[in-house]
Amino acid sequence: MPLTAVALNCTLSPSPAESSTELLAQQVLDALAEHHVTGSMVRVVDHDVRPGVELDMGEGDAWPGIREQVIASDILVLATPTWLGQHSSVCQRVLERLDAELSEKDEQGRLQTYGKVAVAVVVGNEDGAHHISAVCFQALNDVGFTIPAGGVTYWNGEAMHGTDYKDLPETPDTVTSTTRTLAANAAHLAALLAEHRYPAPGEG
Amino acid sequence: MPLTAVALNCTLSPSPAESSTELLAQQVLDALAEHHVTGSMVRVVDHDVRPGVELDMGEGDAWPGIREQVIASDILVLATPTWLGQHSSVCQRVLERLDAELSEKDEQGRLQTYGKVAVAVVVGNEDGAHHISAVCFQALNDVGFTIPAGGVTYWNGEAMHGTDYKDLPETPDTVTSTTRTLAANAAHLAALLAEHRYPAPGEG
Amino acid sequence: MPLTAVALNCTLSPSPAESSTELLAQQVLDALAEHHVTGSMVRVVDHDVRPGVELDMGEGDAWPGIREQVIASDILVLATPTWLGQHSSVCQRVLERLDAELSEKDEQGRLQTYGKVAVAVVVGNEDGAHHISAVCFQALNDVGFTIPAGGVTYWNGEAMHGTDYKDLPETPDTVTSTTRTLAANAAHLAALLAEHRYPAPGEG
Amino acid sequence: MPLTAVALNCTLSPSPAESSTELLAQQVLDALAEHHVTGSMVRVVDHDVRPGVELDMGEGDAWPGIREQVIASDILVLATPTWLGQHSSVCQRVLERLDAELSEKDEQGRLQTYGKVAVAVVVGNEDGAHHISAVCFQALNDVGFTIPAGGVTYWNGEAMHGTDYKDLPETPDTVTSTTRTLAANAAHLAALLAEHRYPAPGEG
Repeated sequence: MPLTAVALNCTLSPSPAESSTELLAQQVLDALAEHHVTGSMVRVVDHDVRPGVELDMGEGDAWPGIREQVIASDILVLATPTWLGQHSSVCQRVLERLDAELSEKDEQGRLQTYGKVAVAVVVGNEDGAHHISAVCFQALNDVGFTIPAGGVTYWNGEAMHGTDYKDLPETPDTVTSTTRTLAANAAHLAALLAEHRYPAPGEG
Repeated sequence: MPLTAVALNCTLSPSPAESSTELLAQQVLDALAEHHVTGSMVRVVDHDVRPGVELDMGEGDAWPGIREQVIASDILVLATPTWLGQHSSVCQRVLERLDAELSEKDEQGRLQTYGKVAVAVVVGNEDGAHHISAVCFQALNDVGFTIPAGGVTYWNGEAMHGTDYKDLPETPDTVTSTTRTLAANAAHLAALLAEHRYPAPGEG
Repeated sequence: MPLTAVALNCTLSPSPAESSTELLAQQVLDALAEHHVTGSMVRVVDHDVRPGVELDMGEGDAWPGIREQVIASDILVLATPTWLGQHSSVCQRVLERLDAELSEKDEQGRLQTYGKVAVAVVVGNEDGAHHISAVCFQALNDVGFTIPAGGVTYWNGEAMHGTDYKDLPETPDTVTSTTRTLAANAAHLAALLAEHRYPAPGEG
Repeated sequence: MPLTAVALNCTLSPSPAESSTELLAQQVLDALAEHHVTGSMVRVVDHDVRPGVELDMGEGDAWPGIREQVIASDILVLATPTWLGQHSSVCQRVLERLDAELSEKDEQGRLQTYGKVAVAVVVGNEDGAHHISAVCFQALNDVGFTIPAGGVTYWNGEAMHGTDYKDLPETPDTVTSTTRTLAANAAHLAALLAEHRYPAPGEG
C-alpha cells in the first residue's frame, strides 16, 4: 500500500495569498512523490480551527476534518513561517490540538500517532529555523511522532534582511539537497514503521 | 501622573471559564496596585484577534482596540498558559500583532513601545516557564519593551502532574514573593523610564 | 548481533559525587537491558573534553575516546541536568563536538551517525525538560540521529522548589512508565534501522 | 562617576585566534564608549572556568577573577557564537556560574546584580540569534539583570551558508545601527539604575 503524507501549511495569510511556507512545503511533497508517497496540502488558516486542547471544540470547529487527514497519513509535514523568531500562532494551534492525541489510545494502549513520521519545514526572512525545528520536534514527539534523520528543511535570509523565500530567483542548491534527503529518510522510516509497529506498552 | 498596566491573559478558554493564567495575572495586578499602578485585564481569546502582522487586519479585527490599551499603558503583563512546553497560540498571536510596532516610529524615530516595561506570567501543569519567559522576553524586547530585574512570575507542577494553579489549596509563598518583587521592580523601572525617556536614534 | 547503547551523563559534578542525572540515565540503561541492549555510561565531566568543533582538538583531548563509544553504539542516551532552564555546559560541549560528524561521510555520502537512535534524559529541581529535550532533539537530529516516539524521559520538581531527583523517596510511577516506553521504542527503532539502512544520497 | 562595561566573549577558540564574536562585542564596547562607558573584554575560554554553580569552585578556578569584573561593572555584554543553533558551552558555563549570584544578597536582601544592565551579542554562520538572545535574556534576568529596549545585536548568514562575520567585506549598516541603539539604550538605563536603585524586598 502506498504511503501518504499531509502537509499543514501554517502561514498567517489566507488563500489565495502567495506563501513562502507553501512553496517549501510543496517542494517537500514533490520530493516525497519521487519515493511514491502521495501527498496533500492544507492551508490551516483557511479553516476555523478553534482554540482548545480537545479533539473537537464543538460546532463549526474545523480541526476534526484536518485531524482525519493527519491520522490517515503516514507522514506529517508541519510547515511554518517565522515570526519574532518563533513558529506561527497557527502552527502552535495545530500543536495544541494534537495534544488531544495523548488521550486517544487503542486497545493495546498505543497512540494513533505511533508509527507516524513527522518532519518540519521552516521559512523566514530572518533567523529562527533551528529553534523552531526544535520546538516542532519536541512537541510532535510528545504526541507520538517519530523524527527521521535530517528531519527539517528550511530557509532564512541573512540577519536583518527582508527577502522572502518565494522571491528568491531560484531555490538554493543546499535547500534542494536538504529537502531531498529529508524526503528520502522520511519515506524510508515511514515504510519501516508501517510494517514493523512499535510494541504496545507492556509487550516484550 | 499614576502609572498604568494592562494584563493580556492568553488562556485558550473563553470567558466565563476559570483560568489559572488569569489568577496569577490578577495577583500581579494586585501587587502592582500596592505601588499605585492602575491595572486592567483583557482575556484575549474573548476577542476576534485576526492572524497577521499589520496594525489592523481589517473589519472585525479586535486587535486595534487591545493595542490601544497596550500603547496607553506603562507596563504590559503578558500572561500565558503552557501547552506542550510552549506559550499559547493566543500569546503567539499577540506577539505577531505587536510585530507591527516596529514600523510605528515617532518623529524622532522612537517606537511607541520604547520606555514601556514588560513582564511575563506563566502557568502550567507541567514544565515550561523558563523557556516561555525566554521567548516572551526576546519577542517583547524585539518590539521595544524593557525587561525589569525579576521580570517573570510563574508556577508549574511537578513533572507529569496534572494539577492546575487555580486548584492549589493556597498560593505558594515562593510565588507570592516572586510576584511582589516583580511588581516592585516593574513599577520602579516604569516610573524611571516615563520620566527619563530613552534617547532618540541619533541623539547624543 | 545485540544492540548497544552509550549514555553520556552531562552533570557538572565530577565523580564520585552523586548525580540525579546518572540515576535516571541508569534507569534508561536498565530498561534498555530488558530489550537485550547492552549499555555503558560515561560521566563526561570526568574527562578533559576540549572546546571546539573538530573531531580531535589535539593532545590531551578526551573526546576521541568518547566519540569512539558513540560511533560504536546503536543508541545514544544524552542525559543532562537543568541549569537556568537550559541543558548543561557539559551537554552543549558534547553537542558541539558532535557537530564535527557533519564532515564524516562514508563513500556513499552517509554520516556515521545515520541509522543511530538518540534519546534525551533531563532532570532538574525546576522546570526545563520540554525545552531541553527540544534542543537535544534538534541538535542530535542535525548531526544525523533519529528520534523515536517518546524520545525523552524526565523529572522536574514543582516551580521554585529545590528537591533533587536522587532524593525522592521513590521513582514516580509516571517516570518509570515513560522510561520503559522510551526504552521499548528506542530498541525497536534501532533494530529496524540497523537492519534497514537509510538510503545513501542519490539512491532511489 | 563614569559607567563601566565588561564584555565576556564566549567563543570556543582560545587567543590569539580571530573571533567573529569578539569583533561584534568590540563594536558594542566602541559604541558604549561614545556614551562615556569604559569597557573591557574577557575571552573566557582563555581562563580555566570550572564547571559548577558555586561562586568559587576551588583552587585554580578562574571564575572568581572574572566575576569580580562583572560585579564591578554597570553593564554586562554577554557575547556568544552559535553552535547547532545554541549559545556556546562557554556561554552556558558563564550562566551556570552566575547562578551562584542568587545566594549573594546584601543586608536589604538585594542581589549584587540588581541594577546592572545586560545585553547580548550573537554571531553565527547560520541562524540562531533570536533563540540565543531569548536564552540569554531569561538566564541573565533570572540572576538579577535588567534588559534594555533593543538589548541584542547580532549577525547570522543566510541559511546553510558558512560565512563568518569577521570575513564580511564590511559591517552591514543594519548591524551598525542596531549596535548603536543597543549602546545608547544600555548606557541610558544603566545610568538611571545606578542613580535610582530598585527597592529592597519589603520596601514600599
